[in-house]
Amino acid sequence: IQSKLPKVGTTIFTVMSQLALEHGAINLGQGFPDFDPPEFLVDALARAMREGRNQYAPMSGIPALRQAIAAKTEAMYGHRPDADAEITVTSGASEAIFDAVAAVVRPGEEVIVLDPCYDCYEPAIALAGGVAVHVPLHPHDFSVDWQRVKDAITPRTRLIFINTPHNPSGAMLSAQDMATLAEILRDTPVLVLSDEVYEHIVYDGRRHESVLRYPELAARSFVVSSFGKTYHCTGWKLGYCIAPRALSAEFRKVHQYNTFCTFAPAQWAFAEMIERHPEHHLGLGAFYQPKRDRFRELLTRTRLLPLPVPGGYFQLVDYSQVSDLPDAEFARWLTVEKGVAAIPLSPFYQTAPAGQRLVRLCFAKSEETLQAAVARLQQL
Amino acid sequence: IQSKLPKVGTTIFTVMSQLALEHGAINLGQGFPDFDPPEFLVDALARAMREGRNQYAPMSGIPALRQAIAAKTEAMYGHRPDADAEITVTSGASEAIFDAVAAVVRPGEEVIVLDPCYDCYEPAIALAGGVAVHVPLHPHDFSVDWQRVKDAITPRTRLIFINTPHNPSGAMLSAQDMATLAEILRDTPVLVLSDEVYEHIVYDGRRHESVLRYPELAARSFVVSSFGKTYHCTGWKLGYCIAPRALSAEFRKVHQYNTFCTFAPAQWAFAEMIERHPEHHLGLGAFYQPKRDRFRELLTRTRLLPLPVPGGYFQLVDYSQVSDLPDAEFARWLTVEKGVAAIPLSPFYQTAPAGQRLVRLCFAKSEETLQAAVARLQQL
Ligand SMILES: CSCCC(=O)C(=O)O
Ligand SMILES: CSCCC(=O)C(=O)O
Repeated sequence: IQSKLPKVGTTIFTVMSQLALEHGAINLGQGFPDFDPPEFLVDALARAMREGRNQYAPMSGIPALRQAIAAKTEAMYGHRPDADAEITVTSGASEAIFDAVAAVVRPGEEVIVLDPCYDCYEPAIALAGGVAVHVPLHPHDFSVDWQRVKDAITPRTRLIFINTPHNPSGAMLSAQDMATLAEILRDTPVLVLSDEVYEHIVYDGRRHESVLRYPELAARSFVVSSFGKTYHCTGWKLGYCIAPRALSAEFRKVHQYNTFCTFAPAQWAFAEMIERHPEHHLGLGAFYQPKRDRFRELLTRTRLLPLPVPGGYFQLVDYSQVSDLPDAEFARWLTVEKGVAAIPLSPFYQTAPAGQRLVRLCFAKSEETLQAAVARLQQL
Repeated sequence: IQSKLPKVGTTIFTVMSQLALEHGAINLGQGFPDFDPPEFLVDALARAMREGRNQYAPMSGIPALRQAIAAKTEAMYGHRPDADAEITVTSGASEAIFDAVAAVVRPGEEVIVLDPCYDCYEPAIALAGGVAVHVPLHPHDFSVDWQRVKDAITPRTRLIFINTPHNPSGAMLSAQDMATLAEILRDTPVLVLSDEVYEHIVYDGRRHESVLRYPELAARSFVVSSFGKTYHCTGWKLGYCIAPRALSAEFRKVHQYNTFCTFAPAQWAFAEMIERHPEHHLGLGAFYQPKRDRFRELLTRTRLLPLPVPGGYFQLVDYSQVSDLPDAEFARWLTVEKGVAAIPLSPFYQTAPAGQRLVRLCFAKSEETLQAAVARLQQL
C-alpha cells in the first residue's frame, strides 16, 4: 500500500516518550503534568458513572457542559457563544483541529501555518487535500511577521492557523497582533483556526488575547481549547471548539461521523467543575508561575540558556554552550546518555533556521521532578 | 461557506433521540442499553484515575489493553494479532472507521458499501474524496448478492465495507459468504473494512464469522470493534481496529493526528475487565437472547411483524398492517403521537426499496422498558 502521508512518521512526542521509558530518563519531553487532576473532578467523574451517565452523550456535548463553557467564555472574553449552535465538545483539541480542517479545506486550497507549529496541523491539511503554506515566525522571539503573512495570502487561501500561547515557544500574540490580523483578513474570505489550548496558562499579569475578544475575528474563527491542559488530565482527551453557527454546522458534520461524541461521564464532571470551581481555571497562571520561576532559577546552575516564557508550560533552552549537535540528535543524546528527555524544535518546522540550537522542556512537573532533572542537566 | 458535505444533515440517531426527549417517548431508537456497565469495570475505571492514569496514553493504546485484545481475539477467532503493530485503540468504532477510510481512500477511488448500511460510512468516504458505490442487500433477508458485489468491482475500487452482525437488520454473514468474498477479492488489491461491533451479540448458537478467522481476508482487512456495545457503555467511546502491520501503520498516521489517543483511565479498566472477566464478553449472546425472545414475544400482542434477529440488539418490524406512511414519517409519528421512538430504515440507503415498511427498535433495554414500550405499541 502506498502511503497517503508519506512524510509522516511517528510523532516526536511518542518517539521521545518511548525513548525516555526505555532509558529510564526523566520525561520533560511530551507535554503533560506529572501530577493529577483536582480531586473534585475525579470524584465528579466517578459519581457520573455511578449515576448512570454511561451511554451516548449528545453529539455536540451535554447541554450543561456547553452552557458552562459559554458562561466561562463570556466571563473571560466578553463574548458569549451560543451553547446550542456554536460550541462542540470533542475528543481533545486534536480532534477539534482535525475536524475543523476536514470541514472547510478542499483539495488544492492553501492553509497558512506559522513555523514552528504543532505537528498535527500539516497532516490534517494534507488529508483534506490542502496545501500547507509555511510562514516562519521571527527566530529570536517567535513573533509574527505580518507582512509575510499578508504576502502569503492568495485567492486559494482558505484558512490560517494561529496559536497563542504558542507551542513550543510560549510566545503570546498581542492586542496589536489581533488588530493587524483582522485588518489583513478584512477583505478576504480566509478563516482562522485559533489554537488556544494554553489560554489559562499565562504569566506576569499578561492577558490572553483570544480571538473571541475580537468580533471581526471571532466571526471567522474556529477557537480550540483543551480540558486536558487546564485540568491536568491530558489523558482524558476532552476539548472543544467554539465557532460561529455556520462554521459549527460544518464542523459538526465531520465530528458526528468521526468520533460522534466524547466520553460522557467526563462531560458531566467538567460541567460541575467549571461551575463550582471557577477559581481553578482562573488561578492556573498563578499555579504554574512558581513552577516556571523555580525551573528557570534551577536552570541557572546549568549551561543551558532559557528563553523567555510568556505563557504555556514549556521552557525553550539554547544548548549551544553544551553541544554542536543538531537538535534532534541532541535531544536523543540528552535522553539516552544524560537521562532527561526533551523535544527538539526541528519537527515543528518545514525548514528550521540553520544552526538553531533549541530544545523544549516541559515544566508541568513536581518540584522533585524538576530538581532531579536539573541535577542531571548540571552534568552537561 | 459552501458545505463540503452538502447531503449531510444531523444523523437520524440524534434526530430521533432529541424527538424522543422532547415528547417524552420511550427511546427504542438510537442503539444503547438503558442499563449500566458491569460494576467491576466502573470500579476499575475509578481506581485507574485514583492511581494516576490521567495523562496521555500511548498513541496506539496502553500495552496491557492491546495484549488483552490480542489474547481475546486469538481465543475467539484463532488469529493472534500482534499487540504492538496490529492493534490500535480508538475513540469508539466510529473513529476507527473514519481513520481507516482516511488512511487508504484517495480522491476518485471507489468504496463498495452494502445497503442498508450504517450512516457514518458514506461521509467518511466523501471526506476522503472517494466515491461510495452502493450495492443493495437482498430486501427480504439482507443477505449479500455476491454477484452484484463482484460486478461492482472496478480498477478504481479501493475498499469494501462489510458488517456482521449487521446494523440495522441483525443479519450475519456465513462461512460461505466469507469464502465467496475471499474468492472475489483474491486477484484484486481491494481492502476490506469489517465492522464487527456486535461480534459478541449472536443468538441461537450461531458462530460470528469474523474476517479474522480467514487468513486471506485478515491479510487485507481493517477489523473494527467497540467496547461500548460489548460492555454496555456506548458513551465511553472506546473501540479498536485490528489490521495487518502495513495497514495499521497507515491507520495510525491518521489516528495520531486525529484524536492522538483515547481516554486513558478506561483503557486500564478494560484491560483488567477483559483479563479478569472473560465470561462477560463470552456470555453476551446468552445475556441478550432472553431480551430478544421476550421482546419478540411481547410484540405478538401488536400488529407489528418482527423479522428474524440472528445477531445484534435491534429488532426490525414491518408496520404495513398499521400504516401506509413512508418509514421516516411513520417513525416520527410513532415517536410524537404514540410515545415510542424508532429508527426508520431509509437513512441507511442510497435508494430504499419502494414500499418497504420497516423500522428498527432497540431491545437493549430493561424488562420494564420493553413492557412499557409494547404497552404503547399495542395501541397501534
Ligand atoms: C499529543 S502528545 C503531545 C503533547 C503536546 O501537546 C506537546 O507535547 O506539545
Ligand atoms: C452513534 S449513535 C448511533 C448508535 C448506533 O450505533 C445505532 O443506533 O445504530
